[in-house]
Amino acid sequence: MTDVKKELLYTGKAKNVYKTENDDEVLIEFRDDITALDGGKKDTLNKKGAYNALISSKFFKILEDEGILTQFIKLINENEMIAKSLDMIPLEVICRNIATGSLLRKYPFHKNQHLQPPVLQFDYKNDVYHDPMLNDSIIIALEIATEEQLQQIRQITLKINKVLSEFLYERGLILVDFKVEFGFDKDGNIVLGDEISPDTTRLWDSETHKNFDKDIFRKGEEGVVDAYEVVVNLVLNDEEKQKWNID
Amino acid sequence: MTDVKKELLYTGKAKNVYKTENDDEVLIEFRDDITALDGGKKDTLNKKGAYNALISSKFFKILEDEGILTQFIKLINENEMIAKSLDMIPLEVICRNIATGSLLRKYPFHKNQHLQPPVLQFDYKNDVYHDPMLNDSIIIALEIATEEQLQQIRQITLKINKVLSEFLYERGLILVDFKVEFGFDKDGNIVLGDEISPDTTRLWDSETHKNFDKDIFRKGEEGVVDAYEVVVNLVLNDEEKQKWNID
Repeated sequence: MTDVKKELLYTGKAKNVYKTENDDEVLIEFRDDITALDGGKKDTLNKKGAYNALISSKFFKILEDEGILTQFIKLINENEMIAKSLDMIPLEVICRNIATGSLLRKYPFHKNQHLQPPVLQFDYKNDVYHDPMLNDSIIIALEIATEEQLQQIRQITLKINKVLSEFLYERGLILVDFKVEFGFDKDGNIVLGDEISPDTTRLWDSETHKNFDKDIFRKGEEGVVDAYEVVVNLVLNDEEKQKWNID
Repeated sequence: MTDVKKELLYTGKAKNVYKTENDDEVLIEFRDDITALDGGKKDTLNKKGAYNALISSKFFKILEDEGILTQFIKLINENEMIAKSLDMIPLEVICRNIATGSLLRKYPFHKNQHLQPPVLQFDYKNDVYHDPMLNDSIIIALEIATEEQLQQIRQITLKINKVLSEFLYERGLILVDFKVEFGFDKDGNIVLGDEISPDTTRLWDSETHKNFDKDIFRKGEEGVVDAYEVVVNLVLNDEEKQKWNID
């Protein structure tokens, strides 16, 4: 806890969001809680929150350098981020480069089929309705976003995919798929929010296709945090590792 | 049975499709079978097939008059249609003017919410995968249709909605929602196929909102065929009624 932290604004499955003294900024605490299967599977894993905060911060910084607006301002602690306040859009935007997971259960794709162009999917962030898949027409009718906003979200998501896929591939990892969320900043810009971490991506070793992501937890296997630590080590540079005592 | 009928090409939940002596044409037999709830509820109702064939033929003729290509050639019997051979696209294209049914179960629309513009949805016609909802990105990745074909299907479906909504409203019925299917003719045109009938639409009395469609069967209520007969009487003109002995 830092003295910046104040009133709790929102608590999710793995993060808390607090007010700060500046209305344009929030403090996001990455917790050690991990959940899967629509909340049916839960655990608390020491250091998980810190690793996700470090990885997500790194990804957001890389994306900012490529001209993508993100919520990230700075890490003030290994699991605490100061971020721009956003009015979040209740969409889970999913981008897939390889067919695996729920896509294989729902549709006749071949296992590990390469998806080019990537497959995009919008799920409705709504616990009561269990995050159902949407289409553009339903999104517009529910007034979640306009057609123009959806088109912008698609373009940003494909750029995120390109930038992070290249960054990770150079470090021996395939970005199989990922989920992102967006919000509006005070000027009405669409800004990348939430996190991009092993909790919200599938990352495979490019040679062995071994998971370095939450699928380890979904499958009930050991070594979740060890895998996340490998990702931290792959993505942080020496200076960043020294700053956060990663070795 | 007529002597035109030959080899069975395809049998569905409520129709059989037979070869004819002309490769460009098929014979579609509208059966009296009725199913609902992904095949979990079944019955056979005398005259149901004939009423659907008469109603669907009438709708297709109206749509042809408005410049929409349809599979319909002629009725040769009250439940047998000669139709163009089509290479069917495995999509159920759903168009909704009022929020009811599965839309209310899946998403937080208000009951009977007016949907303007209409909500369009594409489901994958695939029994093994239980007809899952698709989005454009998944349709393209599965090579079911191209982006341009989807755009054309959307335009045709909205025109069908407009034409039939007006025709039915003048006869005291609201076209609440409907499902259509399309195929390619031998020249590669996208052509309306299958049927438009009380099996594939929701039709409400415009004052009482009483159903005149398959929802009566879904709810397990009596009077399914009587309701379909009401629709036949509302949509056929005197000459057509006389020809098919409808009174």
